[in-house]
Amino acid sequence: MANSLSTNNSNRNSNRSTTLYRQVAAELASDIEQGVYLAEQKIPSVRKLSKQLQVSISTINQAYALLEDQGLIRAKPQAGYFVRKGANDEPVPPPLSQGGQPKAVTKTELINHVLENVNQKTNVNLGCAIPDHSFLPYRSLQTHMQKVTRFNMEEVFDYQFSPGLESLRTQIALRMRDVGLRCHADDIVITQGCSEALHLCLSSTTEAGDIIAVESPCYYGFLQMAKLRGLKVIEIPTDPIHGISIDALKLALEQWPIKVFMVNSRYSNPTGGRTNSEKQQHLVELAKQFDCQIIEDDIYGEMPLDNNMAVPEGKEAINTVIKTHDTDDRVMYCSSYSKTIGPGLRIGWCIPGRNKKSVIQAQRFSTMATSSLPQLTMTSYLQNGHYDKHLRSLRQRVTENIKLFSQAVQHYFPKGTRLSSPSGGFILWMCLPDNVSSIELLHRAQEDSIAIIPGDIFSNSDQFKNYIRLNCATPWNEEVKQAIARLGVIVEELSIAND
Amino acid sequence: MANSLSTNNSNRNSNRSTTLYRQVAAELASDIEQGVYLAEQKIPSVRKLSKQLQVSISTINQAYALLEDQGLIRAKPQAGYFVRKGANDEPVPPPLSQGGQPKAVTKTELINHVLENVNQKTNVNLGCAIPDHSFLPYRSLQTHMQKVTRFNMEEVFDYQFSPGLESLRTQIALRMRDVGLRCHADDIVITQGCSEALHLCLSSTTEAGDIIAVESPCYYGFLQMAKLRGLKVIEIPTDPIHGISIDALKLALEQWPIKVFMVNSRYSNPTGGRTNSEKQQHLVELAKQFDCQIIEDDIYGEMPLDNNMAVPEGKEAINTVIKTHDTDDRVMYCSSYSKTIGPGLRIGWCIPGRNKKSVIQAQRFSTMATSSLPQLTMTSYLQNGHYDKHLRSLRQRVTENIKLFSQAVQHYFPKGTRLSSPSGGFILWMCLPDNVSSIELLHRAQEDSIAIIPGDIFSNSDQFKNYIRLNCATPWNEEVKQAIARLGVIVEELSIAND
Repeated sequence: MANSLSTNNSNRNSNRSTTLYRQVAAELASDIEQGVYLAEQKIPSVRKLSKQLQVSISTINQAYALLEDQGLIRAKPQAGYFVRKGANDEPVPPPLSQGGQPKAVTKTELINHVLENVNQKTNVNLGCAIPDHSFLPYRSLQTHMQKVTRFNMEEVFDYQFSPGLESLRTQIALRMRDVGLRCHADDIVITQGCSEALHLCLSSTTEAGDIIAVESPCYYGFLQMAKLRGLKVIEIPTDPIHGISIDALKLALEQWPIKVFMVNSRYSNPTGGRTNSEKQQHLVELAKQFDCQIIEDDIYGEMPLDNNMAVPEGKEAINTVIKTHDTDDRVMYCSSYSKTIGPGLRIGWCIPGRNKKSVIQAQRFSTMATSSLPQLTMTSYLQNGHYDKHLRSLRQRVTENIKLFSQAVQHYFPKGTRLSSPSGGFILWMCLPDNVSSIELLHRAQEDSIAIIPGDIFSNSDQFKNYIRLNCATPWNEEVKQAIARLGVIVEELSIAND
Repeated sequence: MANSLSTNNSNRNSNRSTTLYRQVAAELASDIEQGVYLAEQKIPSVRKLSKQLQVSISTINQAYALLEDQGLIRAKPQAGYFVRKGANDEPVPPPLSQGGQPKAVTKTELINHVLENVNQKTNVNLGCAIPDHSFLPYRSLQTHMQKVTRFNMEEVFDYQFSPGLESLRTQIALRMRDVGLRCHADDIVITQGCSEALHLCLSSTTEAGDIIAVESPCYYGFLQMAKLRGLKVIEIPTDPIHGISIDALKLALEQWPIKVFMVNSRYSNPTGGRTNSEKQQHLVELAKQFDCQIIEDDIYGEMPLDNNMAVPEGKEAINTVIKTHDTDDRVMYCSSYSKTIGPGLRIGWCIPGRNKKSVIQAQRFSTMATSSLPQLTMTSYLQNGHYDKHLRSLRQRVTENIKLFSQAVQHYFPKGTRLSSPSGGFILWMCLPDNVSSIELLHRAQEDSIAIIPGDIFSNSDQFKNYIRLNCATPWNEEVKQAIARLGVIVEELSIAND
């Protein structure tokens, strides 16, 4: 904009000052239209733009007043002018999903195909749900790691057998009190990330041919684990904001001998939806009534978005997990520090309840023990007491990013795109026009070195063929914005081509 | 001895010098009888004993000459006097084992019971096959770990996804050339110790109900892994020195649809026996003929005992593994650095051949990746080039220990005890009198804070109920000697009590 105006500079301060403010306004409007400024983004202050364009302050004031009248920007007291979110720009969440019959997992090849593509080096990683290292406390971890290697040589290189380092289990038990769960170090088994925790819990509760229930959509890892154990999977309809349909789950439990219900409690991967305390309670009651077990994956649990941080009241006074309501040890809780501290440490844990013995046995003869140094490093980091402070800043950054990514998607993606409003985690779940294949989009995006995850792998059914998941825990910058713009263009092209 | 003689000191240099040398000889003989000096152990030099007992050198010379005449000691030129091994002290190896029919694993509870007992703190660990940290290069590992954490922060804390760090896989591929195996980094998958390697290979080749073949006795982990996957196990008779009976394996393959044969190639845990190159070749041919796969556990492979270190000739020119002979990618090779560098790092690997894709898939959805820092530390250590030097000194120490432990067992255990002569590894396998229960021995030994592993858990059958396994990679000292003496006494008591 600055350029096009400055070529007209000579005219400006002379005879056409009445039309000049309109010209400024028109070009700002075009910038907004083209996404140079996104919804909720601050535009330059009056003083700054006046200096930039070398026009008078009153001209800029007139231009901004016009834009306000047109509903394109609004003034915030003490803060300046911001691009207004259009009334029809409110994100529309994806619809309630469909359930199905129990069946063997059929997406193995597709899941592996996607992961092999996504793990390749790309310029912009909107694919794997891994926070960029700039979001994680690597400097602090390094200090703790060096401290630990300096003093505890034998502990570092000797085995720390299953169930894992006691001091680490103590730290974890202490933190579990934050979700109203009074457990002890003895109840906890340290694992190789949340992944091993889930795998061990599933191994110790199911046999080939058994049926498990999952949400629709669910983390594709649940499907793959089920496949590896020869299990059948039944999907339960789920709302992208409020989580699973209890009625549908009950119906499924009445019809089928479901052994285990596997769920991302806080917060769903991919929808970012939350199972609230009341629903958690319901789930536990259903599990009791039908004598099945729950495997609760809480890996995003410590990442509520800031708009969800208000102190809840009544039943919600504590940000509970499903296991908080577990009165007879049938919930197997799993989590890890891979999303909030350091994925490469591979430190996760489970609280397997009544299955503790069999989980330890299965671990003893598969991985035997988790590496000692990561366990010691994590203990030292947690004991240090800076984790909560780090979490606060992480949540703030992620909340900001989710806002910026959402705005960019709303701006650049074709009309009809529906978008999740996650309560936690750092991913967006998007429903594209019906005729867009997310697998095609994966390949087209790869040509531009952009990674995304196609929605098709989050279900055994075909209902998410036109969905995608975006990782938003990557620093927001021009390159990321351009990548989202490019995705929008490809989606539009695919939609037209397949029309 | 010194004390009893010194009280007689006043007489000694006066009138009874002719009987004095007999007295010295008698007390030395009693020391040998009581195991103060063990077979092949050096006794004090003439000069030293003369000084110690304050008697003349010629008296000691006379005493030693008498002991030589009695066949109790012998002189080695330039080296001094050594306790002679009695003709009837040659260790008799345990007999060839029995095979059996395929059946489900029944020892799970027993195996877990034993491991829970053995993992408890004891004063003398002759139980788990874990080298004492004084045998391992912890100081050097510490240096590498600190170097790695200082410079590679992002690599250290980010994921190193399956199949693992390429530079580590390159180091491993280079080392595999030592056993005549030309493989590349791409053929290798890094795992959480050898244990995960075995588990993944078994997962990717079998389904519940399948039959696998193992040696009898075999590592109890094989049985437990089979149990966890719902497999049936058939045991193949095995000689404690020369390994598996090829004829018996062939017969079993003709009779049963065996999917996989799992074997400790170099060297058997628990017998220390070795499958020579010719037998390795036979195994591969049989696998081909009957279209089954071999899972080769080579975890003790880099620990031949020094008596087996002579350069072999002809077919044995290279210390091969089974996979060396594999022409159609059906052998799945597994190993780790837990026995030779640092168990707590949990770094193992497999070369899964035709099953590589499914092994990576199974890993991706169970442990996802091995911790990054241990991978980087191990790479740095191996690149440094000191591993071979460390191995040489480790082998020397272990060879010496195996000799000392064997001698102590021969000395302190009741007649009829049969003892392995391991070709490699650092464990002894012993057959006790028929009526001694090794499980009873486990519990009795525990009362004296001594850990052993009862032989009963190395087979699905009952044929090793009176066997035990001893870990010899612990520093040889008076406490260890006393522990072995104590075990000998308990064995004798149990044998008499059950007679």
